[in-house]
Amino acid sequence: MYAASLDVVGVGKAIVDVIAQADDAFLAAHSIAKGGMELIDEARAKSIYDAMAPGVEISGGSAANSIACIASLGGKGAFVGKVSKDNLGDIFRHDLKALGVHFETTPLEKGPGTARCLINVTPDAQRSMTTYLGSAGYVSPADIDEPTIARAAITFFEGYLFEQPMAREAFVKACRIAKKTGRKASLTLSDASCVDRQHTALIAFSKAHVDVLLANEREAEALFQSNRLDEIAKKARTLCPLVAVTMSEKGSVLIPREGEVVRIAPTRPQRLVDTTGAGDAYAAGLLYGLARGLDLEKCGALGSVAAAEVISHFGARPQQNLRKIAVEAGILS
Amino acid sequence: MYAASLDVVGVGKAIVDVIAQADDAFLAAHSIAKGGMELIDEARAKSIYDAMAPGVEISGGSAANSIACIASLGGKGAFVGKVSKDNLGDIFRHDLKALGVHFETTPLEKGPGTARCLINVTPDAQRSMTTYLGSAGYVSPADIDEPTIARAAITFFEGYLFEQPMAREAFVKACRIAKKTGRKASLTLSDASCVDRQHTALIAFSKAHVDVLLANEREAEALFQSNRLDEIAKKARTLCPLVAVTMSEKGSVLIPREGEVVRIAPTRPQRLVDTTGAGDAYAAGLLYGLARGLDLEKCGALGSVAAAEVISHFGARPQQNLRKIAVEAGILS
Repeated sequence: MYAASLDVVGVGKAIVDVIAQADDAFLAAHSIAKGGMELIDEARAKSIYDAMAPGVEISGGSAANSIACIASLGGKGAFVGKVSKDNLGDIFRHDLKALGVHFETTPLEKGPGTARCLINVTPDAQRSMTTYLGSAGYVSPADIDEPTIARAAITFFEGYLFEQPMAREAFVKACRIAKKTGRKASLTLSDASCVDRQHTALIAFSKAHVDVLLANEREAEALFQSNRLDEIAKKARTLCPLVAVTMSEKGSVLIPREGEVVRIAPTRPQRLVDTTGAGDAYAAGLLYGLARGLDLEKCGALGSVAAAEVISHFGARPQQNLRKIAVEAGILS
Repeated sequence: MYAASLDVVGVGKAIVDVIAQADDAFLAAHSIAKGGMELIDEARAKSIYDAMAPGVEISGGSAANSIACIASLGGKGAFVGKVSKDNLGDIFRHDLKALGVHFETTPLEKGPGTARCLINVTPDAQRSMTTYLGSAGYVSPADIDEPTIARAAITFFEGYLFEQPMAREAFVKACRIAKKTGRKASLTLSDASCVDRQHTALIAFSKAHVDVLLANEREAEALFQSNRLDEIAKKARTLCPLVAVTMSEKGSVLIPREGEVVRIAPTRPQRLVDTTGAGDAYAAGLLYGLARGLDLEKCGALGSVAAAEVISHFGARPQQNLRKIAVEAGILS
């Protein structure tokens, strides 16, 4: 095994967010669950978009947001995801490449356009997401490039894609390459209802392939079918070498298979503006730390400061340099 | 002449803004004039965009921003401008239609894509704009629909398009329809260097067709070749029935052909964040007032409060309801 020249390669949705203001009546009229994330078809996406207020477009995607944070931490990141040959695809590609991220997945030639996530923000600052997957759902094993996976300390998968059969095959292919080349694989569960639907498959996949599993509280409860931390920790240890559970303003816990549970204090944001992207940023801090061989306390602390930056402004990607913040916080030097 | 069922129809660039952070070295490296607006070709647009930081996309265009403000004031607006059949064109169309704006210009079938304005924002909050006109430059007389012009109290042209020969023909066609149907025509000069280049043509066009001419101080100085208000007023009265000159934090003056110059006090914004769109918003307030037959003091005051809202946040289109603000300020009831 040679030294990794990439810290993290993310595999996930190549997607552009469309953010607009809405009220509760709008959500009700379009059967949009407040605070949720729902995959929708093109016809419903068109109907919701036609009715939405004027918007702002910005590159998004859970794993892609994490990779943007990896770059901001000073790490080397790569991304695997499927855009289409259209303006939104160009925008998504530009925004990653402008951060120095390696992104060479062949765009989809024919078929649906680049994915968009319609985000309706209500006056209570909650974001309700409906996603038209478009070309983003077309990630397949052919997109997994062996040298890229072999170069990365960690390959990181976005759970949102787990329900796409070809994307799941791509995940398995990448995990096998990672194992063969002495690298690690990580998965974020992304969505509690997806965990409910895919429970058996997610347990099997995690046990077989995942070195670092990330979940928020609701996802962890759905996966481990318990809301008691001691039980979750016990089950987690039988599943993966490391499980991280994020708990919003209560911080997070890291559960290693060997050794004690590590509690990570939350970092208070300068102001709380928009919690979208908090989990993506936390994942980036944790994985960057693991890729660089830091101890678990520092890995978790990196996750906390990255999340605090991202929730202090509108939008899921960092606006300040995360490395500078981590250095000032004494976590990195 | 029947009553106008539209307040203002705007004719201008159908364009999406791409906003990103930059430093002075970036501007120098790409020969971008700080604070300026330059039309660039596709190759240069690609080269600048490739080098730009990650961005945010939002619908823009000077006259289109004004029409968005007209809608926010509770007025009925329409827009004539050329998008292409691509994602950016869809976004531009959506963002106007979501405001209730009538926008039915046929998109360009072949040729360049939808226009984009690359806006690099430096830490001093100045915006330096480079615009790839794309399909936006293809406005032609065929896009001027007689019933729409005849329905609108005022047709409003964006000076940025004056240098496109077909667009200028479209302006002339629309002005003739407006005159024939008893409507008014308005022009905003948009850019002082364009005024320098097109001086003779702009004087001739304004004298022949324009009822309401809008300019900022620099544009007015370039057109009237004086920096003294009394001289500008004297020359303005020989040119158009009404000339408005905006002067940033000093407010504005309205120069009617008959009667005294009307001085309009500026409205202080709650906070000054980004001056882009101030002129577009002022134009909207003034033209809405004129379309509704208000006196000049109220027309100017509407311009001032609209501009104050737009400069109090990032982005050139209003985020609060302008009608509500105008009612609270006692200008509208």
